[in-house]
Amino acid sequence: MEHFPAPLEELVEQFAKLPGVGRKSAQRLAFHMLGQPQEACERFARALVNAKTQVTCCPSCQNFTAGGLCPICASQKRDHSVICVVADPRDVAAMERAREFRGLYHVLHGVLSPMQHVGPDDLAIQPLLSRVAKGDISEVIMATNPDTEGEATALYLARLLKPFDVKVTRLAYGIPMGGHLEFADDATLMRALEGRLEL
Amino acid sequence: MEHFPAPLEELVEQFAKLPGVGRKSAQRLAFHMLGQPQEACERFARALVNAKTQVTCCPSCQNFTAGGLCPICASQKRDHSVICVVADPRDVAAMERAREFRGLYHVLHGVLSPMQHVGPDDLAIQPLLSRVAKGDISEVIMATNPDTEGEATALYLARLLKPFDVKVTRLAYGIPMGGHLEFADDATLMRALEGRLEL
Repeated sequence: MEHFPAPLEELVEQFAKLPGVGRKSAQRLAFHMLGQPQEACERFARALVNAKTQVTCCPSCQNFTAGGLCPICASQKRDHSVICVVADPRDVAAMERAREFRGLYHVLHGVLSPMQHVGPDDLAIQPLLSRVAKGDISEVIMATNPDTEGEATALYLARLLKPFDVKVTRLAYGIPMGGHLEFADDATLMRALEGRLEL
Repeated sequence: MEHFPAPLEELVEQFAKLPGVGRKSAQRLAFHMLGQPQEACERFARALVNAKTQVTCCPSCQNFTAGGLCPICASQKRDHSVICVVADPRDVAAMERAREFRGLYHVLHGVLSPMQHVGPDDLAIQPLLSRVAKGDISEVIMATNPDTEGEATALYLARLLKPFDVKVTRLAYGIPMGGHLEFADDATLMRALEGRLEL
């Protein structure tokens, strides 16, 4: 039990609930906020409530958006016949940074994980099937992480998509750009070899 | 520029303003809060505003408190003739954890630092002098950190307190309990030798 007044203690506790923030860090953050002007605290408080109330999932791709269709789904400049399936909204941001993909996305909001009790009903799989069932989709690109759960999820979805007349692909595995062969793990090297391309 | 909706982006920015929180961590924290129930976000938001509005400085010792005299200054069980001067409210918490000191505190809210443009007027020095001037104080213990600025602040205060009939002491320097001689730095060893006690 620290000797802090109750409202300060409560703020420390709230910070300490954040992932990766221990009690010492939480104290530091709470004291930092106490040192800020009233307006800064209120702005932070508003941001917390607004993010939760105003951010919704796009009814089409399930990515986070501020109400209605997300800007990507609403854009006429994107290729509406290709869907890139990702686990997380942050993956959409990563793909967009690469400025290579011009199609649409579908955010699953997780991956299948029997260990964590995440089953197909916990992910945005039905909305993806509905999108594909409507037709007009030529290709679905699986872009889940290349780990056990991401792989399993991609394979599961590929099987579900079989009945539809749609090409299902996935991102290439290989040596990352700027990476060194000597530091690459065996599995990556094996996949890079399997996926070798003609020059 | 990430592709997040504005309210989410705003929350990421607020988290990123915290000390030691980079943009990647801020994203992780913002996404974590989005995954929490509405009630959790509102409670966090309330804690931010309440801490700022309800936490005040004790009119006597300047420690943070929830209005009025702090519990330590108000306690009849403490020795009101001894004042321990610390730089920060967290130092009070540290001292209280040690359960050794039974006097009162005085929180300076910083240390003298010409480099950071912190002068005597930026610290709670006048309130300390007023407390000592009222009499009834037998000893003032300097417990600022044993670094350059903490030392300078302690010496400065000791000089200011000279005119008053009060004993001014400071915490002992030495090898920390559980510490190893071989890992102690030269300055600490020198101070430990200077401050050696008879067994």
